[in-house]
Amino acid sequence: MKRILLLGAGRSASVLIDYLLSNASQHNWQIAIGDVSVHHLETKLRPYPQTRAFAFDVQNQDQRIEEIAQVEVVISMLPALFHPLVAETCLALGKHLITASYVPPQIKAMEPEVKAKGLTFLMECGLDPGIDHMSAMKIIHHIKGQGGTVTSFKSFTGGLMAPESDTNPWHYKFTWNPRNVILAGQGTARYMENGAYKYIPYQQLFRRTQTFQVDGFGAFDGYANRDSLSYRDPYGLHKIPTMLRGTLRRPGYCQAWQVLVQLGLTDDSYPLEDSVNMTYRQLVESFLPVSADSLSLRERVAHYVGLAPDAQELQLVEWTGLFDEVPIGVENATPAQALEKLLVQRWNLSPGDKDMIVMLHQFEYELNGEQKKLTSSLVVLGDDEVQTAMAKTVGLPVGIATKLLLEGKLTSTGVVVPLQADLYEPILTELEQHGVTFTEKEE
Amino acid sequence: MKRILLLGAGRSASVLIDYLLSNASQHNWQIAIGDVSVHHLETKLRPYPQTRAFAFDVQNQDQRIEEIAQVEVVISMLPALFHPLVAETCLALGKHLITASYVPPQIKAMEPEVKAKGLTFLMECGLDPGIDHMSAMKIIHHIKGQGGTVTSFKSFTGGLMAPESDTNPWHYKFTWNPRNVILAGQGTARYMENGAYKYIPYQQLFRRTQTFQVDGFGAFDGYANRDSLSYRDPYGLHKIPTMLRGTLRRPGYCQAWQVLVQLGLTDDSYPLEDSVNMTYRQLVESFLPVSADSLSLRERVAHYVGLAPDAQELQLVEWTGLFDEVPIGVENATPAQALEKLLVQRWNLSPGDKDMIVMLHQFEYELNGEQKKLTSSLVVLGDDEVQTAMAKTVGLPVGIATKLLLEGKLTSTGVVVPLQADLYEPILTELEQHGVTFTEKEE
Repeated sequence: MKRILLLGAGRSASVLIDYLLSNASQHNWQIAIGDVSVHHLETKLRPYPQTRAFAFDVQNQDQRIEEIAQVEVVISMLPALFHPLVAETCLALGKHLITASYVPPQIKAMEPEVKAKGLTFLMECGLDPGIDHMSAMKIIHHIKGQGGTVTSFKSFTGGLMAPESDTNPWHYKFTWNPRNVILAGQGTARYMENGAYKYIPYQQLFRRTQTFQVDGFGAFDGYANRDSLSYRDPYGLHKIPTMLRGTLRRPGYCQAWQVLVQLGLTDDSYPLEDSVNMTYRQLVESFLPVSADSLSLRERVAHYVGLAPDAQELQLVEWTGLFDEVPIGVENATPAQALEKLLVQRWNLSPGDKDMIVMLHQFEYELNGEQKKLTSSLVVLGDDEVQTAMAKTVGLPVGIATKLLLEGKLTSTGVVVPLQADLYEPILTELEQHGVTFTEKEE
Repeated sequence: MKRILLLGAGRSASVLIDYLLSNASQHNWQIAIGDVSVHHLETKLRPYPQTRAFAFDVQNQDQRIEEIAQVEVVISMLPALFHPLVAETCLALGKHLITASYVPPQIKAMEPEVKAKGLTFLMECGLDPGIDHMSAMKIIHHIKGQGGTVTSFKSFTGGLMAPESDTNPWHYKFTWNPRNVILAGQGTARYMENGAYKYIPYQQLFRRTQTFQVDGFGAFDGYANRDSLSYRDPYGLHKIPTMLRGTLRRPGYCQAWQVLVQLGLTDDSYPLEDSVNMTYRQLVESFLPVSADSLSLRERVAHYVGLAPDAQELQLVEWTGLFDEVPIGVENATPAQALEKLLVQRWNLSPGDKDMIVMLHQFEYELNGEQKKLTSSLVVLGDDEVQTAMAKTVGLPVGIATKLLLEGKLTSTGVVVPLQADLYEPILTELEQHGVTFTEKEE
């Protein structure tokens, strides 16, 4: 019998839990699931005798030690900021750890000790980071194996809505932490293009998009992620002239979001005065110069950001309710918090809504003196608002990796990211059985 | 005999030192001056037997205690970040303190103890903050004394060049910490206009200017300072509908600076890759999208920021050397640090250069049912690149306040800012004798 502890049973863990349950009896797993609230799991777990759900407080050290001490492997789907705490206890008690989040510096620093104890801390094993690494490395290794040289690699991922549930003019609903969506791109994006370093400050980011087509699903706009440069070394692409990672949105979104950025609505650095009583319309006014003319608010916003009043961008902005005389109603709200409150009401999933994950890799490489292009794309659709494509693509790789680890097939020790064939091969193969399938196209 | 300790003898302390020396024998002062380096003071101090200059390290606690213990009052002209350290020792040893910098939270927190010990920590007693407070409060008290109500107060200050030394197309040279000039305005400006809160994000700040005329000196552009709202209470203008503090530049400066902001050149948040070898031209390129056309760099910058290639803004940008193939030559430089290195070479004072301080207050008030306007302006010219207008206007109020304190005429205790008549009256009166004179104009 092998014992698994899953910490975090929120929205993005639903498919992972199903995967673990469906494998439990065959592999003789005992599964414990801890989260702040686990009531929603009662019905689901009832048919599985070797399972247990319990209220868990990650900050409670005694409980953390008690629960982690009982198992072979810990899976953490908690918010990323708690992973160092969980990792510390895993290290102290000699337990393996699997997460779908980026390796934070505190865990990176544990590497020598993790290795010395023969443990595996597998990180970045979800969707992005996760499937992006695995699918890219498979192609990069293949090109290199043929004797080719990758000269350009652009990779974009988006968590969007399936066409049938794409029912608002932004073509977007929240399937991910709303706050992260509001603050996305803050800082400066860094990448390489044609051998030169490129930097995009936040206020230019959403106007510097590229458009991509995905067969059967139409057009997508991509904006650059914060740091594409740091992936050159782990991917073995030390001297690659072009390297860019980014995020996909449907056309229209980035252009309208740029208006919000230009106004200052995504600013999270200061609290608004009297934000309880201030209306959204007053909030928009607060970013505009005082005007003596009789133009409408929409016209003045248009003028301020250099658009025509009937521009589609302004239609999207108006649709959010930002021009309405509705109080923000939150004390000491930052502009970003005020905006989040509004968008959470507008971009919520309705029952039955299906989301969609789109991932796109574009490679250019030289092989035997020839310039070649290769595109690899993935589209995953959600079943409904619980079994989302997001939950599938984040949870399944974690579940599969857990199985490999418990079967003794994941032998790398230390802080591991799934960049090697012995990891990505079995995970990508099993993902295909679950409908997570890339389509490759050579040009 | 009274003993004064002056900490910090840099550029902005020159006039203060002269003031203290010229008053020393009459008032029987003993003056000690400490700074990292004091060689430049040897000749100046030689004629004054009751003076002493010495190498001082503010981080050296033993030295700090030893020197502060010997005097009645400490003047700190050190960089503002050291003031809490100096204040701590003053408080422990029961000594008065005078500075020209903003009250930091750490010193604000000392208020009850300072008061309990009967000490005076007089802060914000230079130019801005300092003369701005005093001259504004004098007018505000006058209007209130007549029974009037201030409905609008806009106040702008600039450290610029006298017309005869205004020899570059930016009409600007450094008379102040260059780094502060490069980073000026970062964050979000907040003010009130017509009863509504107004917020200007950094990327819009330098296009949101207002133009002012000063008799005999022509036009100035003003941009908003970071926080005008926090001055309402100290000024006794709790419910004022319009309140704005800002900074003056000559026309052309803000428009061209906006181009640098839009590109990302004032960003201080990340180090550039390979900044030793990167040229300024490559740095500008790094902020632009890759282009297939054959436009010049200037044309592409123009297009990117929405200007015509022959726009004056681009002439100013090109004048800085940003389009030159000259290496930045600094390791791990941020864009802001790279820009600072370039501008320090372009905006340096030449021998004989005269600077200019301009301060402008615009009041609107109601008196006996009438709407009135009052403008108060100050222009101070420097004598040369040492006896600058900046050094006069920062140093003289500090010197005069020191004299008042030692004469027992400054009796407020606690952490004090010069907002009361018993402080600003004698200081403004003596400033007039030194040519620091406001001109008032009623409309």
